[in-house]
Amino acid sequence: MNSFGEKFRFTTFGESHGVALGCIVEGIPAGIKIDEEFIQSEMDRRKPGKTKFETQRKESDTIQILSGTFEGLSTGTPISMVLYNENQKSKDYSNVKDLFRPGHADFTYFHKYGIRDYRGGGRSSARETAARVAAGAIAKLMLKELNIKVQSGICEVAGIKSENLDFDYSRQSEIFALDKDIEDKQKDAIKEALNSHDSIGGAVIVKATGVPIGLGEPMYHKLDGQIASAMMGLNAVKAVEIGDGIESSRSKGSINNDQITSKGFESNHSGGILGGISNGDDIITKIYFKPTPSIFKEQKTVDVSNEDKLYNLKGRHDPCVALRGSVVCESMMSLILADMVLLNMGAKMEHLKAIYNK
Amino acid sequence: MNSFGEKFRFTTFGESHGVALGCIVEGIPAGIKIDEEFIQSEMDRRKPGKTKFETQRKESDTIQILSGTFEGLSTGTPISMVLYNENQKSKDYSNVKDLFRPGHADFTYFHKYGIRDYRGGGRSSARETAARVAAGAIAKLMLKELNIKVQSGICEVAGIKSENLDFDYSRQSEIFALDKDIEDKQKDAIKEALNSHDSIGGAVIVKATGVPIGLGEPMYHKLDGQIASAMMGLNAVKAVEIGDGIESSRSKGSINNDQITSKGFESNHSGGILGGISNGDDIITKIYFKPTPSIFKEQKTVDVSNEDKLYNLKGRHDPCVALRGSVVCESMMSLILADMVLLNMGAKMEHLKAIYNK
Amino acid sequence: MNSFGEKFRFTTFGESHGVALGCIVEGIPAGIKIDEEFIQSEMDRRKPGKTKFETQRKESDTIQILSGTFEGLSTGTPISMVLYNENQKSKDYSNVKDLFRPGHADFTYFHKYGIRDYRGGGRSSARETAARVAAGAIAKLMLKELNIKVQSGICEVAGIKSENLDFDYSRQSEIFALDKDIEDKQKDAIKEALNSHDSIGGAVIVKATGVPIGLGEPMYHKLDGQIASAMMGLNAVKAVEIGDGIESSRSKGSINNDQITSKGFESNHSGGILGGISNGDDIITKIYFKPTPSIFKEQKTVDVSNEDKLYNLKGRHDPCVALRGSVVCESMMSLILADMVLLNMGAKMEHLKAIYNK
Amino acid sequence: MNSFGEKFRFTTFGESHGVALGCIVEGIPAGIKIDEEFIQSEMDRRKPGKTKFETQRKESDTIQILSGTFEGLSTGTPISMVLYNENQKSKDYSNVKDLFRPGHADFTYFHKYGIRDYRGGGRSSARETAARVAAGAIAKLMLKELNIKVQSGICEVAGIKSENLDFDYSRQSEIFALDKDIEDKQKDAIKEALNSHDSIGGAVIVKATGVPIGLGEPMYHKLDGQIASAMMGLNAVKAVEIGDGIESSRSKGSINNDQITSKGFESNHSGGILGGISNGDDIITKIYFKPTPSIFKEQKTVDVSNEDKLYNLKGRHDPCVALRGSVVCESMMSLILADMVLLNMGAKMEHLKAIYNK
Repeated sequence: MNSFGEKFRFTTFGESHGVALGCIVEGIPAGIKIDEEFIQSEMDRRKPGKTKFETQRKESDTIQILSGTFEGLSTGTPISMVLYNENQKSKDYSNVKDLFRPGHADFTYFHKYGIRDYRGGGRSSARETAARVAAGAIAKLMLKELNIKVQSGICEVAGIKSENLDFDYSRQSEIFALDKDIEDKQKDAIKEALNSHDSIGGAVIVKATGVPIGLGEPMYHKLDGQIASAMMGLNAVKAVEIGDGIESSRSKGSINNDQITSKGFESNHSGGILGGISNGDDIITKIYFKPTPSIFKEQKTVDVSNEDKLYNLKGRHDPCVALRGSVVCESMMSLILADMVLLNMGAKMEHLKAIYNK
Repeated sequence: MNSFGEKFRFTTFGESHGVALGCIVEGIPAGIKIDEEFIQSEMDRRKPGKTKFETQRKESDTIQILSGTFEGLSTGTPISMVLYNENQKSKDYSNVKDLFRPGHADFTYFHKYGIRDYRGGGRSSARETAARVAAGAIAKLMLKELNIKVQSGICEVAGIKSENLDFDYSRQSEIFALDKDIEDKQKDAIKEALNSHDSIGGAVIVKATGVPIGLGEPMYHKLDGQIASAMMGLNAVKAVEIGDGIESSRSKGSINNDQITSKGFESNHSGGILGGISNGDDIITKIYFKPTPSIFKEQKTVDVSNEDKLYNLKGRHDPCVALRGSVVCESMMSLILADMVLLNMGAKMEHLKAIYNK
Repeated sequence: MNSFGEKFRFTTFGESHGVALGCIVEGIPAGIKIDEEFIQSEMDRRKPGKTKFETQRKESDTIQILSGTFEGLSTGTPISMVLYNENQKSKDYSNVKDLFRPGHADFTYFHKYGIRDYRGGGRSSARETAARVAAGAIAKLMLKELNIKVQSGICEVAGIKSENLDFDYSRQSEIFALDKDIEDKQKDAIKEALNSHDSIGGAVIVKATGVPIGLGEPMYHKLDGQIASAMMGLNAVKAVEIGDGIESSRSKGSINNDQITSKGFESNHSGGILGGISNGDDIITKIYFKPTPSIFKEQKTVDVSNEDKLYNLKGRHDPCVALRGSVVCESMMSLILADMVLLNMGAKMEHLKAIYNK
Repeated sequence: MNSFGEKFRFTTFGESHGVALGCIVEGIPAGIKIDEEFIQSEMDRRKPGKTKFETQRKESDTIQILSGTFEGLSTGTPISMVLYNENQKSKDYSNVKDLFRPGHADFTYFHKYGIRDYRGGGRSSARETAARVAAGAIAKLMLKELNIKVQSGICEVAGIKSENLDFDYSRQSEIFALDKDIEDKQKDAIKEALNSHDSIGGAVIVKATGVPIGLGEPMYHKLDGQIASAMMGLNAVKAVEIGDGIESSRSKGSINNDQITSKGFESNHSGGILGGISNGDDIITKIYFKPTPSIFKEQKTVDVSNEDKLYNLKGRHDPCVALRGSVVCESMMSLILADMVLLNMGAKMEHLKAIYNK
């Protein structure tokens, strides 16, 4: 249950305030150049404390490869990567040790496991997603050899929507903004949340280009089903759309159907997926994050004995968890596509002959 | 890839116009009363041709149990169920045999598998969901013994939203409507779509009550991740929300966090899930269906040789696929909860002692 | 848990005295000619009642395909097959209804599931293996296109060993004997067991030829590990050897190592597997079956209330379960190889380029 | 494919001469005391270089826990453990860099993956089993709370068989011998192999006591099938027996059936398993290892260009790989039983009620 993917599969471990986090990535074809600098650069995109719009926890998030490569290439054996926590030093938890944080997972973890790891969310902390980004970087290295590209950015902050989607710009924006012209308004909304000791939500868009027709395994491992599973499973995500999403449900068939021509589809309402299988067009998905539950206003809660209490949070937190979430969404999409590329091999007998009969 | 669930798991087979459809359901605890009438009544809720708002294909959808029960009880062995197609007789496909239907999966299936089963969508037809409903009925029989209840209904047709959610009423509404007062407007929208040879979209809400705290397996088999996977994997679904969904992403932490009191949560913005684990509150999810891609207006398409063609559909189709989809969504939720109930066993050592040390 | 295989995967259902048995086979590449006569001929090899050396239960074991083919070809969707029981009519079980049969699984099934299906073993009956043979036939059709061949036969009955291994002869022998010259002695042993109301054990050898180098997925899905799992999981099997097996463990490295030359290996002590991966040589495995536990001598047992009882069996049983077991072993090997062929695709980047870059 | 187990599942990584080896163990119930000293003591039993009967590679095999525990208890989250290689310093491989070692996996790995990691076997080295022992120690800590005990020892070296099976003595024997009186003969055989630059095989017996009735999941995850899979998948194993194994296949039903009485079974020919499910008796399995393929005699081989070559090995190797293999077999059995204990939960409705209805 700590693994994702069927063939290109990764398994993560680690807690927010434990010794280390990391992952094992399996199913990587042998012979891929494993560019460690690239992996680190992906880690750096997600790491905290880069700007004032992010939590001020300081972590270098230096990734170390423990296995699976030889002379710079993947060998077909699992690549394990580890990331030691550097800034988890025990602060004083005595006043919140037994209190459940509203909007957080400690209430449910405690009831499920009967154990309370009160140090910053433990396994349920979004810090776990660092391991996903490491795994995602390997996926990207594989996809690159097939000319498949995955990009992401922030398309909405506190309801303020981007109009243009410039994925290149997003890589240089402090808030991963897709629209340079809207960025300042979005930044203002974040600052206001910070100033009022509150937090806000946002939305991410992920686009994959160069995806071959045919990825996605019906019935229960469809491309859209997997995307939804991966994205909704991320901390704070509450909604996922493919293509036009909700708008489609308010449209008509005559408008929503993408007309097919010999030069390709005339539109892309479907987000590049038909019947759970990629149709060759861009894959488009939109992911909605709730506001960070950690806020600095007094809230009602209970303690482990179910006594009513008031909760006053201190600490370091992202005011808008969607921002750094965009890198994670991009990583998850890359991991899904890498898996789907492998799973699709063998869909027809012709594939087998291409590999075994030469 | 034709299976869903880890422990309570079902595997389906069958094509729209093949001999039969069916499923194998595994992981069913022994000793559950298998009420065949109830299973058939669930099939009847989904079956086509009951009203003018549905496709006029006539199928009795009579389910037959082939294994897994003895003297009316589950035995712990797989329950297999089969459903013979009755109304699949070969009409004349000659004029559409080589044409891909816009908005449908035949384009992607053909490119993936290199085979074209032109008879009504083959495996990609929503008719496959009949097998899910059969499996879901078994899940419901198990959940009932734990007092967990799953309900569903239509909360939106063509953008016309229900205001009250009356899940009991939905069971008697011809269009599975949750709101009696809005129902007629929703019906009118469907009729208009029918009259204009078009189709429309809609949305379903599923609610589960009586769910114990603790269901959901982090990290990659969370309750919300599984719900999203199951729902987005359904034919025509393009968006899934948990709890307040997109609205959450436009809210503030101070509003969106459900305050915790000794008597329970003060609100349910979260849809009953925190950190991917049920929190004891109602599980709420909303599922958005695109308009049925089968419409009776001329459309652009290509044939298997990628020649431009015009497509004129004949046949029998649901004008709004969301309607009967509601029963399927409800079945999928039941199947997920049955699985989660089983997966959660063993979360703490205390569980093992309850079973092995007596 | 009723499924076997990762990519080429089958799931079985059905009880000895239920309505039907069957399977769903998934992961079959599209475009394979599905020869129904061949599938039936495989069923016929395993079916009971052909000779006096087998149980006299009469079943035609007629297989019906319910899905997954179109115009004689596999479509990439699951092939489901069903087999109705014909000769399961309820005999009088009143005197054994509550008694556990020594050497059989009813004792353990009852304690595990709390249910007693007393009719001939229920799910634990070797009749379940009919579904494996049906699935195995599909695997063979796929392997045939890659020139991989799997054969089997009886190499030992009651300790009487075959010397020559003639796999073609085995197909015409009443007892699946590999050695025509030893066959009569082996038959005599079976007859003697029959006459003395007893049963005897035996052993099967399975050989696969034409297997490409590279099949088997380290670490925990190795070729030898999967063979052992599949074979030991068969009813009555108590030992599995690969290559020289136990003899290897009594040998020396200098003798047991297969020397490598530019023309291939000089010997095949390894049974064609090194490090869990096929080395291009013949795959050889030997499977040992205990005597049929159903004997016609009085035995000690208990009833469901753990009262001491005497057990006197009536009915129809194979005196040597290894005989028909050979076809099942051959099927399981075919299923494993089909799965391994698919799983190996993607082992190196070169494979991906062969499929996606053209 | 680097994971084993369904619910209590571990995933390993690491190469013989890479940076580190390790594992992630999932599905551990929360609340188990994680005794790190015990885990290290298990590592120490397997670690190399303790006696002259083992390879002289020096490794401390110090295990470090990276996650999954809090205040000494398991938390329900994955426990990750890592083991840095200390003695992998690059010797001079120049003369064997391109040569396949007879009896080893480098031939098959090279052909499968197209990459040659020539440093001591890479992933295929038995050094990977250190990670299994670490995982196995966690399994043992869980089983201990249920009074299930797993033991092992050497029952055969070079065909010299133990007569008495003293599992306590095995823990103090330099060669893990089960029979003190035969031990010297077995040691002499190993010394002789060492002196003649050769290697020899051996066999291990594993016994589990206190196993409840009902463990094992039919059809394709039976207890005996899983044991066979796990054991045959170990380096150098070529045969696995359950209970009387091959001897059963040469016996008669009237002798081989274990008679059932109200006080238990009168014998244990079955090795504690009926129909793939534990029957409450001791689980007994025997595992046969081929001689270490690394010998110091000249052998025939080819290089990566398939040129005929002579191979002269230098280095450090176990003369009889079965010895330290016994600890690994014991670990694998523990891991299987831990998984089976969890999987069995939910076999009957009564289990669910014990957990959810209180």
